[in-house]
Amino acid sequence: MRGVSIVGIGQSPVGELWGRSARQIAYDAVSAAMYDAGIETADALYVGNMLSGNLLNQEHLGTLVADACGLYGIETAKVEAACASGAAALRVGVMAVASGFHEVVIVVGLEKMTDTVGQDTTAGLATAADAEYESLHGVSFVGLNALIMQRYLYEYKVPLDAFAGFSINAHKNGANNPNAMFRSPISREAYLRAPVIATPINMLDSSPVCDGAAAVVLTSTARAKQMNAGHRWGSVEILASASANDTLAVHDRRDPLVLEGAQVSAAKAYAQAGVSAQDLDLFEVHDAFTIMAALSLEASGFARRGEGWRLAEEGAIAVDGSLPISTMGGLKSRGHPVGATGVYQIVEVVQQLTGQAGANQVQGARLGMAQNIGGSGATVVTHILGA
Amino acid sequence: MRGVSIVGIGQSPVGELWGRSARQIAYDAVSAAMYDAGIETADALYVGNMLSGNLLNQEHLGTLVADACGLYGIETAKVEAACASGAAALRVGVMAVASGFHEVVIVVGLEKMTDTVGQDTTAGLATAADAEYESLHGVSFVGLNALIMQRYLYEYKVPLDAFAGFSINAHKNGANNPNAMFRSPISREAYLRAPVIATPINMLDSSPVCDGAAAVVLTSTARAKQMNAGHRWGSVEILASASANDTLAVHDRRDPLVLEGAQVSAAKAYAQAGVSAQDLDLFEVHDAFTIMAALSLEASGFARRGEGWRLAEEGAIAVDGSLPISTMGGLKSRGHPVGATGVYQIVEVVQQLTGQAGANQVQGARLGMAQNIGGSGATVVTHILGA
Repeated sequence: MRGVSIVGIGQSPVGELWGRSARQIAYDAVSAAMYDAGIETADALYVGNMLSGNLLNQEHLGTLVADACGLYGIETAKVEAACASGAAALRVGVMAVASGFHEVVIVVGLEKMTDTVGQDTTAGLATAADAEYESLHGVSFVGLNALIMQRYLYEYKVPLDAFAGFSINAHKNGANNPNAMFRSPISREAYLRAPVIATPINMLDSSPVCDGAAAVVLTSTARAKQMNAGHRWGSVEILASASANDTLAVHDRRDPLVLEGAQVSAAKAYAQAGVSAQDLDLFEVHDAFTIMAALSLEASGFARRGEGWRLAEEGAIAVDGSLPISTMGGLKSRGHPVGATGVYQIVEVVQQLTGQAGANQVQGARLGMAQNIGGSGATVVTHILGA
Repeated sequence: MRGVSIVGIGQSPVGELWGRSARQIAYDAVSAAMYDAGIETADALYVGNMLSGNLLNQEHLGTLVADACGLYGIETAKVEAACASGAAALRVGVMAVASGFHEVVIVVGLEKMTDTVGQDTTAGLATAADAEYESLHGVSFVGLNALIMQRYLYEYKVPLDAFAGFSINAHKNGANNPNAMFRSPISREAYLRAPVIATPINMLDSSPVCDGAAAVVLTSTARAKQMNAGHRWGSVEILASASANDTLAVHDRRDPLVLEGAQVSAAKAYAQAGVSAQDLDLFEVHDAFTIMAALSLEASGFARRGEGWRLAEEGAIAVDGSLPISTMGGLKSRGHPVGATGVYQIVEVVQQLTGQAGANQVQGARLGMAQNIGGSGATVVTHILGA
């Protein structure tokens, strides 16, 4: 299997982009990534997206986006794995290059969740859960995460504000990211008085509904070394690309506090890259809710069960800590346009590994991981990148 | 790039399967394919599906189906390319094995279009077209095909019943397929008096709304030769796997009567397999509407432009003709559960190449092609299989 590298990145700002349609937002990210890579065409374009059918009455996004970008006669498809759609699309792009089917591939994560024409956004997000055994009974996606968080507080006897550190760190980092949706730091006091959405989840535990797109250009590592002769930041190699599923419904899990999909996904990634959790310089975590950040850290080998929140409380997750996470604001502050998030994470790891992270630069970062979670841990995609 | 072969096939009957939910229909096909291949687990499962979000309020189908089949810790994703979703998912499965990422992969095409809980099915199907520039103006999917067919009749001055042969052939073949939705042969007279749906498309030009799932098990060609030592039908190699896009909207095409996506897709496939159109023993064509069958034959090198319908009129497309098409009933008679169709086509080519096609067996078939079309030619995926 030949190596695969990233030679171009692009992103739109994240927010309520009422002035841009889905295809325009995707164009913004793709054209930026193509310009960054110095390419004018590609062999394939894969779109990570979850909600376009339900919210925009538009499927067939692979060809829609390629068409908007003036690309014809190439392979196009949409890849969907709920909130892990972005990284699942990257998986396909990696396999397309690794197999030798394609030389140059574009992967774009895209979601338009505001100013939509179709179904209600909350109902759309519930399609990530089991429609017949979870959603039908009225539980929303935030409701499912609230049940898990409540269980965490009970089982591990941690205080209600144990999760504050995740949100504070994300907002601190997002303040320095020009593409982040929320650029205001928050205090512990603000977290403590934030309105509750679904007990015990409050507004500052939760990532926002928003629009955005992020894109990467992939090619073989051998070709990347040729292409990047005059490139301003070189290239970044994808050292591991792995995915694992769990039960779709939370009530079917052996233990709702253990993300077995994340355990398997991370273990596969570490094996592929030949590294361990301790070798990583940063980790873009799936902090759609603060509880998910804690569970992801525990499942991926950074903390023992019930102790993920301590990494936040003790400051380890800061940009200058021992394990920086959400370094550009994470899902909480940069925003979580669901199908785009997995690609935003990758773009941000590339920024960190190539010295493009500005005020949030993790000094000397050489090895970074991103984990993208679909549903409440039902699909988990993990990538490790090295510069 | 290592070779990829099919070592197991499975399918559900096609029809209005009101007694089976989407996950149950998928389970039927996947479990049959796994049993056929003699496997108890797999490394990945990819689902080709178009409409589950809009019609069933259910996304995240990759993990939903894996979960229903008792498969955990594996890679899962849904792949969508409108009506070409099935073959687009197969493309991903092929790349997963060809790259060496996975050894054993399941690809299942699934669609549940009747007895649904979400959006109206016709509105759902319109998401294959351009929501902002086609569907918004009220044109349905059958309406778009009607515009193309009207133009064909005008430009080439062919009689209104020029397309009858496609429907008659499909129904004749479907009568012998136990999984087909429609198993009654039709006469030319029945075609001529069929009610018009959207001028000039009549009911017998059109494939039905229905439910169904079809699955294949893939592995490397080297491993297939080991696995199939005691296998009842051996294995079939995937000699070509190619995809190409065109503009999403029909009105953006240089010529609405030329499927440039199909031209490029077929040309790539012929080059990969090192064969020409004349070498093929059968062709599973995308006859969602009879006009699409004619245009696909022309774009794929079987007829000159404006003459695809002659192959039907002259009987070349019969099972004992020079180019058998829709040999198990095609989309018209077997049925067109949209996201499943691309995999049904592959299952049927495997049946033909391994002597499992019963009364519809194409004698001595060694080389077969399947072409799956998304939208009105906007995404075209072509596979060539050899036994």
